[in-house]
Amino acid sequence: MTHIKALPQALVSLIEDLSRLPGIGSKTATRLALHILRRPASEAAALARDLADLHARIHLCGNCFSFSEENPCPICSDPRRDATLVCVVEGPADMMAIEKSASFKGQYHVLHGALSPMDGVGPRELRIEALITRIQRHKIRELLIATSSTVPGEATASYLMEKLARAGVKLSRLACGIPMGMDVRHADTMTLSRAIDGRVMNR
Amino acid sequence: MTHIKALPQALVSLIEDLSRLPGIGSKTATRLALHILRRPASEAAALARDLADLHARIHLCGNCFSFSEENPCPICSDPRRDATLVCVVEGPADMMAIEKSASFKGQYHVLHGALSPMDGVGPRELRIEALITRIQRHKIRELLIATSSTVPGEATASYLMEKLARAGVKLSRLACGIPMGMDVRHADTMTLSRAIDGRVMNR
Repeated sequence: MTHIKALPQALVSLIEDLSRLPGIGSKTATRLALHILRRPASEAAALARDLADLHARIHLCGNCFSFSEENPCPICSDPRRDATLVCVVEGPADMMAIEKSASFKGQYHVLHGALSPMDGVGPRELRIEALITRIQRHKIRELLIATSSTVPGEATASYLMEKLARAGVKLSRLACGIPMGMDVRHADTMTLSRAIDGRVMNR
Repeated sequence: MTHIKALPQALVSLIEDLSRLPGIGSKTATRLALHILRRPASEAAALARDLADLHARIHLCGNCFSFSEENPCPICSDPRRDATLVCVVEGPADMMAIEKSASFKGQYHVLHGALSPMDGVGPRELRIEALITRIQRHKIRELLIATSSTVPGEATASYLMEKLARAGVKLSRLACGIPMGMDVRHADTMTLSRAIDGRVMNR
């Protein structure tokens, strides 16, 4: 910051903190900090309190490794959820998206990443050993592998399918195809070929 | 939030706080909150502390109404700045942009808004009376009106020019024209006609 003169230190500190967040550049950080300054102090105080509380209150569920205030988490401790059907996701955001769809009634297993040797992420960096133990201990019937259709996501899915081929558990994947509401003419070729390969027969 | 089950309350609270910031929707807020949770607790604590400090440490400069930890602010108390040349801006962000250019050596006057009767912003809502008092008391020589070239910005500039026409102070405006690095073919017609009207003769 070369324009320090125009900026009080308390504002510079906040702008620097905000700039460290993903997708927030120094311009956006400045805009946010000025907005917070213009709003009542009570709003900044509420945000400060919630930030300070976050790490103290949230931990990983010992069963599925999702972020939770309780252990086990509300999903793992819900008797209406099918504990023998487990959806494997890369991160909490994927799990939240699936929960939002309200079409999955099993439990989750959060890997906290995807295989990417270039970035130093191997099987040991993910919660894969814990998944294998869980499959054996809890008699998991089906594993829905819901990693992303990116290179690391596909690599993780392949690794899991090979590793678990003889684990006595059914393995499934999310269907791949044209997203709802998208024109076929706008779909990329990879998506289209997946949609054709995975076409569903009319009964 | 209908997907509460998947989200601990401490995370929901933070996401709601973040969603109140301008330009941050619930998806971005969720992404930011999860990022903060994955990073060390010390980073969240630093952000929380800086937020809590902000309003306590920053006030308005009594002379120019910019945000500052001192009164008068470092610019108003700097003897190297020309106190008889004052740049009128809508907000602190405009002032920061001009400071960054390092081509203005006078002082500022922050209006904290622009005239917009539809939004209930009239002359009384801006720091205009204080500007008039300042012109008289400090023998201001020139007022550079640097409001934005938006409808409210132009309305504010017109109002000030009429109001101050006989105040014994020279009035100037920022030059309007093609931004640096922009192709002429990409400039909009309004900007082009301003750039032609304001053309600079070769000496």
